[in-house]
Order: sequence, then C-alpha cells, then structure tokens
Amino acid sequence: MSKAKVGVINVTGYAGVELTRLLYQHPGVELASVTGRSAAGKRLGEVFPHLASIELTIEAEPGEVDLAFSAMPHKESAGQVMPLLDHGVKVVDISADFRLKDATEYQQWYGFTHPAPQLLKQAVYGLTELYRSQVASARLVANPGCYPTGAILALAPAVKAGLIEPEIIIDSKSGISGAGRTLNLQTHFAEANEDATAYALDGHRHLPEIVQELERLSPKQALSITFVPYLIPMTRGILTTGYASLASGKVPVDKKGRRELFQLYQDFFKDEPFVKVVEFPPHTKHTWGNNLCLIHPTIDIRTGRLVVISAIDNLVKGAAGQAIQNMNLMLGLPEVTGLEAVAVYP
Amino acid sequence: MSKAKVGVINVTGYAGVELTRLLYQHPGVELASVTGRSAAGKRLGEVFPHLASIELTIEAEPGEVDLAFSAMPHKESAGQVMPLLDHGVKVVDISADFRLKDATEYQQWYGFTHPAPQLLKQAVYGLTELYRSQVASARLVANPGCYPTGAILALAPAVKAGLIEPEIIIDSKSGISGAGRTLNLQTHFAEANEDATAYALDGHRHLPEIVQELERLSPKQALSITFVPYLIPMTRGILTTGYASLASGKVPVDKKGRRELFQLYQDFFKDEPFVKVVEFPPHTKHTWGNNLCLIHPTIDIRTGRLVVISAIDNLVKGAAGQAIQNMNLMLGLPEVTGLEAVAVYP
Amino acid sequence: MSKAKVGVINVTGYAGVELTRLLYQHPGVELASVTGRSAAGKRLGEVFPHLASIELTIEAEPGEVDLAFSAMPHKESAGQVMPLLDHGVKVVDISADFRLKDATEYQQWYGFTHPAPQLLKQAVYGLTELYRSQVASARLVANPGCYPTGAILALAPAVKAGLIEPEIIIDSKSGISGAGRTLNLQTHFAEANEDATAYALDGHRHLPEIVQELERLSPKQALSITFVPYLIPMTRGILTTGYASLASGKVPVDKKGRRELFQLYQDFFKDEPFVKVVEFPPHTKHTWGNNLCLIHPTIDIRTGRLVVISAIDNLVKGAAGQAIQNMNLMLGLPEVTGLEAVAVYP
Amino acid sequence: MSKAKVGVINVTGYAGVELTRLLYQHPGVELASVTGRSAAGKRLGEVFPHLASIELTIEAEPGEVDLAFSAMPHKESAGQVMPLLDHGVKVVDISADFRLKDATEYQQWYGFTHPAPQLLKQAVYGLTELYRSQVASARLVANPGCYPTGAILALAPAVKAGLIEPEIIIDSKSGISGAGRTLNLQTHFAEANEDATAYALDGHRHLPEIVQELERLSPKQALSITFVPYLIPMTRGILTTGYASLASGKVPVDKKGRRELFQLYQDFFKDEPFVKVVEFPPHTKHTWGNNLCLIHPTIDIRTGRLVVISAIDNLVKGAAGQAIQNMNLMLGLPEVTGLEAVAVYP
Repeated sequence: MSKAKVGVINVTGYAGVELTRLLYQHPGVELASVTGRSAAGKRLGEVFPHLASIELTIEAEPGEVDLAFSAMPHKESAGQVMPLLDHGVKVVDISADFRLKDATEYQQWYGFTHPAPQLLKQAVYGLTELYRSQVASARLVANPGCYPTGAILALAPAVKAGLIEPEIIIDSKSGISGAGRTLNLQTHFAEANEDATAYALDGHRHLPEIVQELERLSPKQALSITFVPYLIPMTRGILTTGYASLASGKVPVDKKGRRELFQLYQDFFKDEPFVKVVEFPPHTKHTWGNNLCLIHPTIDIRTGRLVVISAIDNLVKGAAGQAIQNMNLMLGLPEVTGLEAVAVYP
Repeated sequence: MSKAKVGVINVTGYAGVELTRLLYQHPGVELASVTGRSAAGKRLGEVFPHLASIELTIEAEPGEVDLAFSAMPHKESAGQVMPLLDHGVKVVDISADFRLKDATEYQQWYGFTHPAPQLLKQAVYGLTELYRSQVASARLVANPGCYPTGAILALAPAVKAGLIEPEIIIDSKSGISGAGRTLNLQTHFAEANEDATAYALDGHRHLPEIVQELERLSPKQALSITFVPYLIPMTRGILTTGYASLASGKVPVDKKGRRELFQLYQDFFKDEPFVKVVEFPPHTKHTWGNNLCLIHPTIDIRTGRLVVISAIDNLVKGAAGQAIQNMNLMLGLPEVTGLEAVAVYP
Repeated sequence: MSKAKVGVINVTGYAGVELTRLLYQHPGVELASVTGRSAAGKRLGEVFPHLASIELTIEAEPGEVDLAFSAMPHKESAGQVMPLLDHGVKVVDISADFRLKDATEYQQWYGFTHPAPQLLKQAVYGLTELYRSQVASARLVANPGCYPTGAILALAPAVKAGLIEPEIIIDSKSGISGAGRTLNLQTHFAEANEDATAYALDGHRHLPEIVQELERLSPKQALSITFVPYLIPMTRGILTTGYASLASGKVPVDKKGRRELFQLYQDFFKDEPFVKVVEFPPHTKHTWGNNLCLIHPTIDIRTGRLVVISAIDNLVKGAAGQAIQNMNLMLGLPEVTGLEAVAVYP
Repeated sequence: MSKAKVGVINVTGYAGVELTRLLYQHPGVELASVTGRSAAGKRLGEVFPHLASIELTIEAEPGEVDLAFSAMPHKESAGQVMPLLDHGVKVVDISADFRLKDATEYQQWYGFTHPAPQLLKQAVYGLTELYRSQVASARLVANPGCYPTGAILALAPAVKAGLIEPEIIIDSKSGISGAGRTLNLQTHFAEANEDATAYALDGHRHLPEIVQELERLSPKQALSITFVPYLIPMTRGILTTGYASLASGKVPVDKKGRRELFQLYQDFFKDEPFVKVVEFPPHTKHTWGNNLCLIHPTIDIRTGRLVVISAIDNLVKGAAGQAIQNMNLMLGLPEVTGLEAVAVYP
C-alpha cells in the first residue's frame, strides 16, 4: 500500500518547521510538499540547516497531497484551506481560523469577518483526547492553540465531573518560541533573557477557545475564567496552572480527597497515549521535543481549592505533534505513529 | 560625625554577598565586619572575586558593630541574634526567625521550638512601606521573605480598602538565585535551564507571613489564600500575580473602574521611594539589581476580578536592599541612601 | 532473528540517561538492563520522569547482555568492564579508561595506575569515522571524549593532508551538561548562567587523546597543540575552533584556496552519515539531540591560517550517540540505525 | 562650581541607554540632554521603564552641553560629531568613525569615504589605559570597540615587552547585547538561546582597530592577527583569549616563567583602577554592570605558548563605562568618578 502524501503550508514558522521535523521521521506518510512564499525556490536545508537531510525544495503553492497542514497566520489560513477542501484534500489547520464555533467571535477577537462561517460547524476542534472519534472522520480539523491545549487538558476532568466552582483562574507560563519566528522587541534575546512578564491582560486570543471547550464539558453552568499568559526565558515549554474552589460535597478536602482526585484524573485519561497524570509537579523539561502532556492535580487543603498543573512542549503537543496525532486518526493510522520519541533531557 | 559601623553575619550566601555589594557603596555607614564560618580567615575577594576591592577578611565571629545583618539560615539565626541584642547591637534579621508573631507557627512551618518567643512581639516586620515608623525605632527588624515582599505589596492596597473578596490566589515566578547558594539537583544548571516547575504545593514557608500581614490589613474578614511558587530559568527576579474577585459595589467593572483602581494604588504608595505603580505589566528585568517594586493593578472586565502583578529583584527589594532600607531608618539616615542606583538593563 | 540485548552501566549520569533515551527508540536492539548503585531498586521513571514509558528497574549489577555500555566515571569503569569482557560481553566504554594507548599517561593525567594495560592495545578508539573497520570487529571500544570528538574531526582532514603547520590552537566552548550531573558550584545555575569562563588551563584530560589521535594522522611530524575548554551558559553543545598556519605550497591563500580546502574536507568525509561539511559557520543548535558533527573549514586570507569550526551535541555525537554508532557496527547493524532523528530546533 | 553638562546622542541603543544609567548616578556631571530620532518627544521612562526616575524628554537634536557622547551607528556618527566640535563641544564618539588612523581603511572595512579625514589624526583612541594623557587634553575621543577593548588590554603587556612571536590568535566570546538593539534573526531569543556560533569569518570590523593598536605597541615587527568573534547565549560579557608562542629567551617556559609573566602584567597595569590581573581564569559574571577588565595571563608549558584571557562587560568597559572614564579625564574629574560600583553578582 502506498503511503499517503502530506504537505506543510508555510514551513518557515516554528510550527511549520517542527511539523517537518516530525513528518520526516514518520513511517506512515510521505512528506511531499512544503510551501513558504518568502523562501520559495530555496532548498529546505538552506533555510533550516538542521533539515538539510530532507530533499525538498520550498514551493510557492502546495503540490498534490492527500492531507495538508496549514501553518499560515490566522486570517490568511482560511483562504488557503478552502480551495484544498474543495479539491478533496483533508486539512489540519494549525491557525485559529476554524477553532471557534461562533463566527461573530472572529470579529471580536481577531478583527475580521470570517470568510467561511459554514465551515466552522464542520470543523472538528482537534484536542484529540476530547474529540477522538470526530477527528477520525473529519475532513477539516482545527488544531488547538498551545495555551488551550495545556489549560483544557488540565481542567477537563474537574469541570466535567462538576468538581469545581465555575470561577477559574488560569496562569500560564510560556517559553518564547510560542511568540513565533517574526522579529519583535519582546522576543529580542537581550530583552527576553533574564526577564519574566505578563501580557495580553485585556484578553488573549486563546481565551475564547478555552471558554468554548470547557463550557461544553460543563453543561450545568457557565464558567467565569480569567486567563493570564506570561513569557519566561526559555525556548520551549508551557507550564499552566488552573485554580478553582472545590464544589462542596464532591471530594473531601484532605489527603484522602487528594487521592480521589488523582484517581479521577487517572480514570479520565485512562489509555490516553499522550497524557500522563503524575504524582509530582511536572517539569516542562520532561516534555522537551515530545508529544506528552503531564498533569498534576492536587488540593490546597488549607483553602479547599483545586490546583492543577500541566506541562507541554508548546511546539509539539501544543502545535505540530498534536496536528500529527490528528492526522494519524484522519488517515486511519495508529494514533501514536511517529510520535513515540521520548523527551530530550537534559 | 563618625559613620555607624555595620556587619554582615554569614556573608557566603547570596543575601550576604548582595548586602556586602550594597553596603560597600553606601555613603552613610562603614562595613566593618563580615563573618562566614566555612570561609573564615579568607579575604573576601578570594571567595567572591567581584568584591576584591573590599579590604575585609571573613571572620568567624562578628566584630564590634552598631548594627548587624543576619543572613544565617532560619533556626540558626535566632541564636546569633540574641546575644547581639543583649549587647545593644541593632539587628536586621534576613532569616525567617522573627517574622511570625505566633511562636507555635515555627513548630508547624519550620519544625523547631522558637528559642525566644518573647522577642517575636518586639520584632518589627520589616516591610518598610507598611511599618516605617516602627522600623525607625526598632532594635530588631525581621526582614520579609522575597515572595512575601512582592505578594504583600501587590495586594495590600486592595485588601486594606476592602476592594476584594477574601479568596485570593497568588502565583509567583522566581529566578533561581532565590533557592540560595547551597547545591541542589533542582538548581543544577542542566536541570534548571530550559525548565519551569512549581514546588512546595503542600504549603511554602512564606505563606504564613503573607497571611499574617494581609490579614492585619483586613480587619473585617479572614482571608483564604492559595500561594504557589515556581522556579523559572533566570538568575534574579520575582514576578507575582494576585487574583481575587472584586467585592461588589466598590469599583465599577469597566475601564473607569480600572482608572479608579490605578488611582487607589497610586494614592496608597504616594511618596514611596521604592514602589512604582505602572501602567503596563512590569518586567522583572526593569528591577535587576535595584530596590524597586513595580506594581500593575488591573481589572479583568469579563469576570470582575482584580489582577495585580508585581516585579522585584529577589535579592534586592526581596532581601538585601530592603534590609538596608530598614537599616537607614533605624540609623536615622535618609531612607534611600545607598539604594538609588537604577536597574542594570538589558 | 532475535534482537541483541544491551545494557547500560551507570544510567544515572547524563551519558547514561541519553544512552537510554536513544536505545529505547532503537529498532535493532533490546535495552535489557540498566544499573546505577545509588538508585538501585527504583523504576527508571522514578528517577527520570521523561523515561517513564520504559519499563525497567534500575539494578545494582548488569544483567545478561550481549553488549554493555559503561558510563561509569574514569578509574571505576575499567573494573566493571574487565569481568564483562571475560564473559564474552562486548563493551563500549564511555569513560576514559581505555582511550589512551600508553598506560603511563593514566598515571600522569588521571592519577592512577591502569589495572589492565594489556587491554589498551586491544581497545579500539571509537571515533567511528577514523576506525570504522576496527570498531566493527572489536570486543572493546573506547568511546572518545566529547571535546576530542569535535576537535579531531575538525582537524583530521587538514592534519592528514599535511595542510597545516604543527602548531595548533584548539578553543572549545561547551554547554554545561558536559560537566556532568554531579553537583558543583561551577554548575550551580545562578553561578553558571550569564557567565563564560575558561578552565583546566594547566591541561585538560582530553588533551592527550587529541594529541594521540591527531599525531597518528600526522606521521611526518609531532604536533604542538594548545587546547583550552570553556563553559558557556547553555545545556548542550560544543563549538570547537582549530587554528593553524597553512603549510606553504599546499593550497593557495585566497578564495580559490578556500574552495580547494572545502573540497578536501568534502572528500575526506564523503559518504560519512554523521559528518556534514558546511558552507557557513555552524550553530550548535542545529545538532541539538542528534548525532551530527557539522564542520566549516575556511582560510583567514589575511594571515594564511586555517580556521576550522565544528559543532556537535556533546551528549550525542560527543557521547551516547557515537557509542550507539559504534554498537551498530559491532553488532553488524547498519551504522545509522536508531540515530536518524533530525535535531530539535529551535 | 557648576557641574559640566553632558548629552547622549542616540539614547535608544544599548550603549546609549547604559550611558544614561551611569551618567544619572555620576556625581560630577549633569546629564542635560538625550536625543533619539525615532523616540523624540517621549519621556525617557516611556521608552525605558528602568530609567523612569530620570526626568528627561528625548529630543531630536542635542541641547547645549559641554561634552557629548555619540552613540550613533558608524557612518552616521561623524556627521553628528563634526558640527559639535565646531561649536567647541567635546566629544566622546562611541561609534567606529574616528578609531582608525588611516582614512582608506574606512572604505575597505566600512564601505564609505570618510567625511573628515583630517580629524582622524586629532582623534585620540580612547583605550584609557594606553592613552591617558592624550585623552585628558583631547577634544575628540574615539571610544574603542567592545572586542578591541578586551583584546588589546589582554595582549598589550606581552606585545610591548616583545614577549611573543607576531603570530597571534584572538578568540572572543560575546554576549548578545553586543549585537545591539536592532532586530535580527540571529538575536531572536528562540534562535540565540541554547546556541553558540562564530561569525564574521571574513574579517570583523573590529580587527583593524586591534591590529592598529597592537602594532603601535610593537615597533619592531608587524603582527599577523587572526580574530574570530562568537555569539554565546548570555546578555552581557565578553571573554577574550589571546594565543601566541613565546619569543625565545624572554621568560622561562615553566612555573617560574608563569610567575614572571604574572609580575610583568601586574607591573604594566600597576595603579590602573579598572584593570585587575588575576590568578585564575576570569568569569564574565564578575564584571556584570561594572567597568573592570579582569586579565589572567599564563603559559601553556607543554607548548611554550602565552594564553591570556580577559573578561569585561561589553556595555560598560566595552562601551559606556570606558566612555565615561574618558569623559572624566577630559573634564578634569578623578578618573573613577561614577564608576566605582562593584559588579552585580550572581
């Protein structure tokens, strides 16, 4: 049987280049095409020396493929994706263009009128652990943002079980590759090194995704979520903490309750290949370069609060790795194919 | 008039060495003595080459001084401090040994029976902005912990004004010098670099200080505080965020409310030389090496929550700088003496 | 055909843990045993959470294997290796214990009398590119040090071709994982971060290896080599520069000479799977986590000097990756098996 | 007596901002004017929050001052400096525009025809330790580049004493602030972090300065200097190593020779306030934020070579600090005024 052909649109950003690294090693597909307007015509290894062993030339337009990943910026991605879908190409869109179900939110959060609102319902939100079967049969998957991946996975078991009150604080520390490859004073080495800062206090664009998905898990009540992202001086990794008061009468506020909580998380993620519920606060370093999400749920016994911490590599489980996890399902391959490498440590 | 003589006990940790740097440049006192058992007999510059221009030999016991800083570890500091007080030497204790008013908390949090509970009431908690006049007349000042300094300053105006509900989340990201100079796998470069992690989820020893001081400002209600500290890969700096719901009817939950909140913080810290209320999320880098605390209060308008962020240099305002600020008051010197250098940036 | 069983002795250092990561993904062997005295009895994932998916318990003594890697410290390794050889187990020794051919050098450089000088001649120096056929038939391979790997590969073509004068300067900048996992003030985060320093100016223990191997390539003349290592604040990577005057009459000192030099290096490493001769100064980042050595040779036209720069990941090509490259040959497997992953970037 | 008024032209780069930090604390001058075209009209604290306590507005043109620092880019600086000189304003030029004595070298190295070659002879090369008396009476001082400062100071004693052969290798590792504040992929955090690389192998623009100044100290012979700069992942600091063979018959190649060499360096820099000859390899960290140059000379006894290592803070002794050291002399102030702060460590 011949392998499926896949392509990467906009290989020149960090999500695109990470997709290429992972797809090159993937035994079940053939990476047939990479595009990138500014670099069109160059060999991949000219632009990214670590990919010199991949014999591909960057093209202006995607070639013939069965499935395409779009790593275009939001607003530009939809325009690339629509003709592909029309030609029967399956798509995993890494941009935000198909993540939100309500088209009016694109106006509010991203400042543009969505060009294809009819596709928003068809698109499957690609947090694989929550939408596995829908992903498998989708022709368009909207790959989650890096922050939402860590935040939703950390809070989903507690929200779904009605374990917590609806007031939720999410504090999320990101490595600087999350800000992309476009130059910016905020990500200039001498400015970002030895610095920590918060940003987007008026509302980060990943917030509506987090609200949309956690509220789908919380049918009885609306949620009130504060989300604050931070830049910290490392290249990769997101460490996310969720804080919420325990609903009364669900789990005891003591060490026994901690064990029940741990068990509830274990059960929720039973058989998940890429989520590990862990007994100690996770280190982002333990996910460097791989597709795991590590989650540590605990109870602040003094105050009766859930404190749950997740760690991911923002470019893998937070972007390219999860996109390939989705691709595997869409192509009928085992979900873990090509994603089994352990983290590079230290 | 002759200058007061001061000494540093245990110069070999990071608080001790930073005290020495700042005292050497201080125009109002003479650094007369530094002690450190393991390094006794060595010239200061042998142990710390950057201090080679200071002509002092590390001694086993403190010399004759008017005021001493103890940078001993907790539990050991009290024993050093008591005889000094008996001899009329004023003391700024950088350890935790005199911070808590309730002696039983030492058993609970630090695991030892306090040797001098009678001194706990005399000791003034050295968060200068809250206890300026008491510090000025104190003979024993308990210098605050690094985390409490950033957390209490960030929340004090809101708590004192009754602006927020008593459920408070404090999420605090620290550079790694905060973990001290003692070797530890957690602070080994290859482990700590490119990593972020939470720790002390069962309760960090700085929590009781934070509770004690914020509750003193909140006479009407007890507080329910969750505090989680994090290590992030930078040398200096603490970025602390406080989250709490706004009490109803105090400030409007809109842009006008944000301006009122900002004004309330401005008023609270009016004329404070070392606290700046700022209009943008602060960067720890902007405090590197100096004694400022930068505070940015805002309202999450979607949820009606206060989000307040502070940035300090953990070794300056979080330790040695604040100790000198207290010393200045205790010796009748202008509060800012020796602390006026601006941050080293970038 | 059943897979060969391999074991790692002393899994708890960085070379051991990196071997384990790479062997776990290796399709041609079975990682059957890992030892580590201090951690004996613990599951691998308890000590190294990123290896939790590997179902192995750390043992006190190696189990039954066909080939063992010793990642013991020098001086202790020989004692572990000798009984294994006696039992017919093939060994790749990552320590220095079998790298030097002259037993008296162990006294001089390492301060001990070698316990098995007769094995020094049998042992093959495992710089695969130079000793491929000997490695294939060896029962004991002495894996090169991290610095020698980058230095010898960078200079071998020039030395062998008699292109340079015998006075050679080697300046080598290493990431801090090269100093190992043992705690040390030099590698304490707050000391090592934002710092660069030289060390071992009296002679680093990797120097005799470099001299031994480059002199074997230089039959006509002895070499006079100065080698200075540096610690710079990154986790992985070694960037090595070799400087030497061009011998007269070999290549022209101009741009044409540069091209001839480049071609000579290309020819030397033709068909080498893990050495790439590159047209621009290499970045250590482009080897992060993989087994490549990137080499850029050029001529300083003003002075008629060779300047040649190599980049490796000190834990892969500089230790565990090269060990597996050797193992592949010793077991009759294709040399690249298990080592084909591209670098993790950024 | 009224203080001299000084101004900073182009405050928005890292040299300009560091000048401003140091001048603000300087007791002997008044910082009267800062300019910066792109930021003209803004308060200094808007652009640089850490300078918010300085009450200055960035202007488009320099105000009335007695002495001006130009931190303009090369080629643009000369045009700013010439009218100031015409109006009797003294100038310390931090750009390269007046460093080279031979106008034709500007064409060769910087690609422009020098607009005022007659000024090149008048301009004093501001490596204070070599030109102290000329600086004191100069109206135009060309402040050295960051690399030349560390390199020339390290090698000057050996070159002047005829201690070494004329073949010299200079290998220099720089923190990334040395590349300036202008955005660039090379200095983008995710690219530069965890990376080391060489650059400018065809000849860095700081090389002709180094040659010019070391040859002035070496009247008997021309020098053959190879200089290679490197970027390493830290914000500040340059560590420079000079390598050269010892001339025969000058110092013995043994431990006694090392002591003689050390003494020769001590004598050369006797009474220098900002150069320390040290007994161990220096750490850049020990100069962070201050004006020292630490130098460690030694002999590689195996090969008879001088190895000399210097450490500076590239923004202080390598730029702004040295500029102020020169200003002090030009204004008749004690040389150390405003520069006495010790390094910020760790």
